[in-house]
Amino acid sequence: MVSVAIMGHGVVGSGVAEILTTHKQNLFLSIGEEIYVKHILDLRDFPESPLADRFTKDFNDILNDIEVRVVVEVMGGLNPAYDYVKKCLKAGKSVVTSNKELVAAHGAELLAIAKEENVNFLFEASVGGGIPIIRPMNQCLVANIVDEIAGILNGTTNFILTKMIEEGMQFEDALKLAQKLGFAERDPSADIQGHDACRKICILASLAFGKHVYPDAVHTEGITDITLDDVKYAESYGCVIKLIGKVKRLENGMIDIIVAPMLVPEKSQLANIDYEFNGIMVRGDCTGDVVFYGKGAGKLPTASAVVADVVDCCKHLKTRKFLFWADGDGENILPAEKSVSAMYVRVKGDNIIVKAENVFGQITKICRADSSSDETAFVTEEMPYGEFLEKVSKLEKDNVKVLSKIRLGNL
Amino acid sequence: MVSVAIMGHGVVGSGVAEILTTHKQNLFLSIGEEIYVKHILDLRDFPESPLADRFTKDFNDILNDIEVRVVVEVMGGLNPAYDYVKKCLKAGKSVVTSNKELVAAHGAELLAIAKEENVNFLFEASVGGGIPIIRPMNQCLVANIVDEIAGILNGTTNFILTKMIEEGMQFEDALKLAQKLGFAERDPSADIQGHDACRKICILASLAFGKHVYPDAVHTEGITDITLDDVKYAESYGCVIKLIGKVKRLENGMIDIIVAPMLVPEKSQLANIDYEFNGIMVRGDCTGDVVFYGKGAGKLPTASAVVADVVDCCKHLKTRKFLFWADGDGENILPAEKSVSAMYVRVKGDNIIVKAENVFGQITKICRADSSSDETAFVTEEMPYGEFLEKVSKLEKDNVKVLSKIRLGNL
Repeated sequence: MVSVAIMGHGVVGSGVAEILTTHKQNLFLSIGEEIYVKHILDLRDFPESPLADRFTKDFNDILNDIEVRVVVEVMGGLNPAYDYVKKCLKAGKSVVTSNKELVAAHGAELLAIAKEENVNFLFEASVGGGIPIIRPMNQCLVANIVDEIAGILNGTTNFILTKMIEEGMQFEDALKLAQKLGFAERDPSADIQGHDACRKICILASLAFGKHVYPDAVHTEGITDITLDDVKYAESYGCVIKLIGKVKRLENGMIDIIVAPMLVPEKSQLANIDYEFNGIMVRGDCTGDVVFYGKGAGKLPTASAVVADVVDCCKHLKTRKFLFWADGDGENILPAEKSVSAMYVRVKGDNIIVKAENVFGQITKICRADSSSDETAFVTEEMPYGEFLEKVSKLEKDNVKVLSKIRLGNL
Repeated sequence: MVSVAIMGHGVVGSGVAEILTTHKQNLFLSIGEEIYVKHILDLRDFPESPLADRFTKDFNDILNDIEVRVVVEVMGGLNPAYDYVKKCLKAGKSVVTSNKELVAAHGAELLAIAKEENVNFLFEASVGGGIPIIRPMNQCLVANIVDEIAGILNGTTNFILTKMIEEGMQFEDALKLAQKLGFAERDPSADIQGHDACRKICILASLAFGKHVYPDAVHTEGITDITLDDVKYAESYGCVIKLIGKVKRLENGMIDIIVAPMLVPEKSQLANIDYEFNGIMVRGDCTGDVVFYGKGAGKLPTASAVVADVVDCCKHLKTRKFLFWADGDGENILPAEKSVSAMYVRVKGDNIIVKAENVFGQITKICRADSSSDETAFVTEEMPYGEFLEKVSKLEKDNVKVLSKIRLGNL
């Protein structure tokens, strides 16, 4: 029997407790031992829970219980999760977490402590919810050098964008619907401003390239400025707009990492990932493109990924999984202004195509039947983002109003 | 240092040798030990190979070398692969194979021997080539009860069908093109008759449901009877035709398993998996649908999956991976005639819709602009396959010629 503790009894935490109870028999068969939930930490009371007798409000009940070998952290947020996880690892307990904020902020340090203590720190559920991604990347693709990762990593924004694309819904209405259906939180800023996707691409980049990438170092744009006009121009250009987290290995050993809305060609595997679903493409030098698709959030999908990590910890109580990356100083990250991309630009003014050609050289005008007469959109050649911004300034000085600028995904 | 031997130096085998050489450094970092290719078994000579000094024509050089801890079997076919693998396992060596025919025919026995000898028998590359699927199913989805697996498991047939769908190419021409491009073998029968896909769904079903499923017990249809007319009727019905391997858990503990071409709705995640790519959907009770996509064959994709298994064996030289299923007697497999599905039927004759309604009751006629006047196609309600065949006989007695019958995928 392996005793585990669960810190947090919210959506994911109650899902973990539920799966460990309802799937007890199956889990026993795959480990050869029973997983026993000994403590559940939460400040609230759950008198109706079938595990009511396991609840505690005191973290020390978990920390000081030497029988507890595996601790699940599903509280979310940095505090007190960071402190608790560190203490558990230092006490020789393996830790499993679904907390992407924690892993993105302190992954390197926590992995180093786990290594020192010869225990495991696993976080499959932190990216892609129920979609297997961390373990496949770390194990199945181990014989590959990863060239690129690109993904739709946030279900909330993907739901909103899909509603705009498929039903012509306005951003604000789509957001309200997402909140009503439980796909968006009351304060949706971490999702719609791209921070959630950023944490996830940071975790994947750290894993793939071996050095911690901190979210602060990553150019991050959300979807709040995307309008129905952009959606329609994109469609005329054979593309859909998706919020993409992307990291690419450059030849000089640097990485080009970004989170931003992008125009994705309709034929791309990522273009068909709709609503609350996530999809992650990993390009290996041997495998080529591999895509993982599924529900990126939700109680049971996320909880099942947590439980898979718990099972892995139970199987490796005496050995450590080879999951590790070093700390990072950000020096391997290409500055955003040097990142090269073709750009979609929507503009308003007189004589705009001539003016745009003067500034950008060759452009591709996007024709759209129902656009207003003094507005148009075009796509530039590939150029570094800094150069693009300078050219946009020039265009604005020439009395052209730049309404939107979105990267081309090239995915 | 861990010494490994590779049996077979064909497409996949030479890829394994190549990756173990070119990715030496990276692999060292993830194991903490060097992987040394000590022997390569092949009846041919490869004097130009950088590993020319490692070649042998004598299997006993591998079997009797106690330093060899991991043996890679990439010869293909049942003989002598089966004999060699069994001997290696019994000699206490872990074995990694890409040989789906071997795993589908003898998986249960070889897993039992591996268990007895406390060594590993791994076969990630046997299904989906470079796509991670065996390990994700066995580890990441361990907290799920699998309800259904459905996949496009054969790149050759998917390439042919895609060419028919996208370019209106005839079956024979698409097959010839596939052969020319190296996506189909000179003798393509195992692919186009569905046997290759059958072996793969058998492996996945055995893994998911814990009992070996032998290919003989699975109703298997190929794509040789699919015509361009069917492709066009399917399109009019909002579907594409794909060769699907599918297994479903029934409430009574039985499984419903089949390989056959199916009409797949265009909105399905599997509908957009084109050309030589594979895609596998796994439906778990907690995760919901998870889809894995990528190249299902080819030298480096397949070899990289083999190498990932070699790495896993090297990390687990003293412990066994929990990958196991029991032998099966076929008693848990639903007879094909009891398997329920709606059916697409293409027919020729006079007054056919009235006759079809007499026999099948409610049907949905498929309208297609350019069909010939005495031909039509319709979709039936769901019914057991046996009942469907009886009704088809009745229809034929009524002077209706049944040109095609294809299942609806419901995916």
